[in-house]
Amino acid sequence: MKEFDLRFEPEGKKLVADSGSNILDSAKAGGVGIRSECGGKGKCGKCRIIVENQRNLNEVTDTEREHLTPKEINQGYRLACMATIRGNLVVFIPSESRLSVRRIQIQGMEQPVKLEPNVRKINLVLDKPTIQNPIADDLNILTNLEKLYNLEDLEFEYELLRILPDVLREGDWNLTVTTLGDRRVIDLEPFDTTKRIFGFAIDIGTSKLVGYLVDLNSGGVVGVGSIENPQIAYGEDILSRISYAEETLENKQRLQNLVTEGINEIIRMACKDSGVDPREIYELTVVGNTAMFSLFLGIQTKYLHLAPYVPGVKGPAIVKAKELNINANTRASVHVLPNIAGYVGADAVGDVLATAIYERDEMCLLVDVGTNGEVFVGNKEDIVSCSCAAGPAFEGVHIQHGMKAVTGAIERIKIEPKSFNVEYETIDGTKPVGICGSGIIDAVAEMFKCGIISERGKFNNIDHSRIVKTEGRPEFVIAWKEETEAGKNITVSMKDIEEIQLAKAAIHTGCTVLMDKKGVTEEGIDRVFIAGAFGNYINPESAKFLGLIPDIPTEKISFVGNTALAGAKMALVSKDVRKTAQRLARWIRYVELMAEPGFQREFINSTMIPYRRLDQYPSIKKYLEENR
Amino acid sequence: MKEFDLRFEPEGKKLVADSGSNILDSAKAGGVGIRSECGGKGKCGKCRIIVENQRNLNEVTDTEREHLTPKEINQGYRLACMATIRGNLVVFIPSESRLSVRRIQIQGMEQPVKLEPNVRKINLVLDKPTIQNPIADDLNILTNLEKLYNLEDLEFEYELLRILPDVLREGDWNLTVTTLGDRRVIDLEPFDTTKRIFGFAIDIGTSKLVGYLVDLNSGGVVGVGSIENPQIAYGEDILSRISYAEETLENKQRLQNLVTEGINEIIRMACKDSGVDPREIYELTVVGNTAMFSLFLGIQTKYLHLAPYVPGVKGPAIVKAKELNINANTRASVHVLPNIAGYVGADAVGDVLATAIYERDEMCLLVDVGTNGEVFVGNKEDIVSCSCAAGPAFEGVHIQHGMKAVTGAIERIKIEPKSFNVEYETIDGTKPVGICGSGIIDAVAEMFKCGIISERGKFNNIDHSRIVKTEGRPEFVIAWKEETEAGKNITVSMKDIEEIQLAKAAIHTGCTVLMDKKGVTEEGIDRVFIAGAFGNYINPESAKFLGLIPDIPTEKISFVGNTALAGAKMALVSKDVRKTAQRLARWIRYVELMAEPGFQREFINSTMIPYRRLDQYPSIKKYLEENR
Repeated sequence: MKEFDLRFEPEGKKLVADSGSNILDSAKAGGVGIRSECGGKGKCGKCRIIVENQRNLNEVTDTEREHLTPKEINQGYRLACMATIRGNLVVFIPSESRLSVRRIQIQGMEQPVKLEPNVRKINLVLDKPTIQNPIADDLNILTNLEKLYNLEDLEFEYELLRILPDVLREGDWNLTVTTLGDRRVIDLEPFDTTKRIFGFAIDIGTSKLVGYLVDLNSGGVVGVGSIENPQIAYGEDILSRISYAEETLENKQRLQNLVTEGINEIIRMACKDSGVDPREIYELTVVGNTAMFSLFLGIQTKYLHLAPYVPGVKGPAIVKAKELNINANTRASVHVLPNIAGYVGADAVGDVLATAIYERDEMCLLVDVGTNGEVFVGNKEDIVSCSCAAGPAFEGVHIQHGMKAVTGAIERIKIEPKSFNVEYETIDGTKPVGICGSGIIDAVAEMFKCGIISERGKFNNIDHSRIVKTEGRPEFVIAWKEETEAGKNITVSMKDIEEIQLAKAAIHTGCTVLMDKKGVTEEGIDRVFIAGAFGNYINPESAKFLGLIPDIPTEKISFVGNTALAGAKMALVSKDVRKTAQRLARWIRYVELMAEPGFQREFINSTMIPYRRLDQYPSIKKYLEENR
Repeated sequence: MKEFDLRFEPEGKKLVADSGSNILDSAKAGGVGIRSECGGKGKCGKCRIIVENQRNLNEVTDTEREHLTPKEINQGYRLACMATIRGNLVVFIPSESRLSVRRIQIQGMEQPVKLEPNVRKINLVLDKPTIQNPIADDLNILTNLEKLYNLEDLEFEYELLRILPDVLREGDWNLTVTTLGDRRVIDLEPFDTTKRIFGFAIDIGTSKLVGYLVDLNSGGVVGVGSIENPQIAYGEDILSRISYAEETLENKQRLQNLVTEGINEIIRMACKDSGVDPREIYELTVVGNTAMFSLFLGIQTKYLHLAPYVPGVKGPAIVKAKELNINANTRASVHVLPNIAGYVGADAVGDVLATAIYERDEMCLLVDVGTNGEVFVGNKEDIVSCSCAAGPAFEGVHIQHGMKAVTGAIERIKIEPKSFNVEYETIDGTKPVGICGSGIIDAVAEMFKCGIISERGKFNNIDHSRIVKTEGRPEFVIAWKEETEAGKNITVSMKDIEEIQLAKAAIHTGCTVLMDKKGVTEEGIDRVFIAGAFGNYINPESAKFLGLIPDIPTEKISFVGNTALAGAKMALVSKDVRKTAQRLARWIRYVELMAEPGFQREFINSTMIPYRRLDQYPSIKKYLEENR
């Protein structure tokens, strides 16, 4: 019987399945959770999945047509229990069909800002017109706003003009006016509704969408939503997604719809939790990398991956939520924060806002670790930035037993020197299923620390029961099959180590090239901020042993979490922060790594653990001298 | 055989037709021109008419379904040759089906203004991005606009963001940017298109739509369009139209669509004549009375005719042309000028702008004669205004042989004292068909001047061949049947005179009540401006003999034509004029005539010819003393 490779997204879990078996059974057998209440009989319709390449599946069955709309079928939706495997597949499990929920970093460091949102609600109690003073309804509103709030030259949205006279009379001349940017009136409601005004801040990550529902009266977060970016079914990295988008206009539209629907999903989640009606959301702020920005807005991406790698639109972009089909107030506005460069996006602006490195005297190194990493070096005088194509290895992708940070992922690993005994922790304390990013970083760092692998990432010639060979290549056993969920050894292979070396070299090169550009050494760096979805879970010692970041004392290092989203939230509650964002997007210098003369050599040096010249890692050098 | 009454709009011509005859034949028999190239065989489809009350017609025939779309049928379109008369009918002949074209006053007095339109086109030749300077496409545009034109904080329309990178490359970095209000970018075109930027100024009159196509580079009018207001099929006066609109939402929508389609028609006319593409129109300004304003924008009109007669929306209203389905550039903006009060609209603001009475030292009386007349008294210190419901008598409606100012209308009448010989002039010098407004004013004034009628409008007891009796009531023959197109006498009846007395009394009362309010007498008025669609054709002496306007020396009187449209055009080419308009709409005082204590008495006094107290008309008194 023929076997095919399956990869399940967003977890990134890989399985081998028999030809002719169905996806639901194969997933269950491999420990991948898909909802199914009828047990795979095609009755409950809960095991919805998305498969891009339908040629490697059977035709859509009549049973599926009962549970799925034609639009969904067109989007690649299937029922896992009815989908027969006929080839290699990438299967995306949408959140509603998922059993375990991935741990997404939501909170991030953030700066206090003065509460001054771009939308505001004002309650007015108007004098009724009389025959002596037959004041027009709109003027009645406007003169009160002028007199009491000093708001001039406001324009009403057209739809509101049509209902204005009735709204006034419905509330017996007591009404609430919602203004946008002190320029436009975007809502009119009878009576006093000033207590109900919300905003939504969104981080469109390559891998995930995260959002805060914010009460604009207090600035506080009242709800949170997060799901994987549904675009992932069409490519896990940026390049494959924008290539897909450029094939046809429909593809571009499909990717735009997917992210929009994803945003609507997180809005629903956050609103449901907090009893807010999406119509009470009057403004949204969005950050994302430049490619996500472009795909979200349906902007031409062709020139983004052709030299000189120019973003078509830097932004900020201000668009009506309605034009983007976003489920908020029908006249809500979406403020998409500006990008810095083709591969340093608005999410990076968010990082800078939230860490405030642009206001600091201290020399800072800011690293956002993600599929697309960004690095900044500087302070209030000057900041340089670059992007590093780290790829998804830190998200568990392309790692043999890699997985995302969900239940069952090994997230902490400690290897005892000499005995090579392994201690590990899993998310939610369950039996291990695989290893997530922070676990992989720990694993490789610890293997180097204990001398299991060399500075080149090769296995040293050691005879130990934990060093097993598969097809003649060595692997290190982290968890024995008896301990694991699937009953198979969880190991770290040569190839896994190579993937990690490439990923960490990308980040490391970004750091050192920029430090070089600024003329600062490790001693010159006063603060290190490590941001990113899983930043909080990285062990800083492991990061330094691996050579992910330069050798800077641990007390100078702060893990700041999802600062991209924190920056979006700051911009949501403060008009002033938006101005700063716009200024930063122009002011921060961008360094195109490819164009730097020393880049290639530095990259190769950085693939070594921790680095070719150990003198640059004195703390590691000292440890090795003392312990080996 | 039964007979039914037909009224043909917009000419206002009335006919009696046999039951069972078709509309085309009846129209032809009565001298009403409807196009027909096949001679009434249902082949050419040119005799399109609109009939509101379809119950008084046969069912729509299959032949008609071949020539008309379902939407048109729903709107009441029929083919005149296929429509069989079964009851009284009002038949609207759209301009495309009309043989004679009504004379519409288009030009008006206007003040010179500095050319400073709200939309502008700017040609930019950008530096191409390089790997050293990978500037984003939008920033490349914005920084040039900042540096060269001092334009900051511009926002792009969302649709433009999507095409921006391609437009730049299509023109090889040479492009033209169109901005609106120095705030928004509303168009991007490759290459230099700055020579092609147009605007359109519209006057939505109760009876007619008139528009100027304006080259915004020169401020000059390059095309003109005018048709009757198609809403007329649903009521000739404002009140009947707004009552109709309030019956159902569909009615309101229908009236809005009719005026929009009418506007599109005049845009087409003006563009066709001048070789301009409607997509080259980037902004439109609109004036109209408050009811037309509301019906055009679909605003609730209910409160307009209930005390205290409040306009729901005073304006200005700024709406995208697309939202109103207006055929201009897809991102063009429509600026609807503000109203003064419930019955003194933006058209009256246009009158004030174009005559500049708000800037004058001289005390001015400004009268806009129309179905809805407006009167202003004042100067730069203070202006009071009122509206006068003159009704459509001056447009020939409700006058036995009345008609609008089209080919064949008697527009000038002179009656020789004693002999009562009549001299008349017709429009285009053809055989007379009826009498239009200026002719009726002449007729009544001359009849009074010659003593045929008394100051009360009653026929004096005179025996003359031109004074004939119909059903015992006297009529004065203006044209003998041998001279006329229809072979019937054209006469002025008692009832016609009564209609004119009521209409002129409305205007006159407006003038005198406001003069009284301002404490000025006839001697205190330095300038009189008479505006309106047919203002140029009124004989000022006749207007005074009739008592339409107060007795002010003729040399102080200027006929200024369509100043409403002239004002709209001034606002189209100058942002500054718009600000003035907004200021005027708030500053000009409104006098509700109904609420004035002396109104009723003054109205009754004003129905007399020229007025109850002849001492107030010394020039007329002198003439009568010398000549009678």
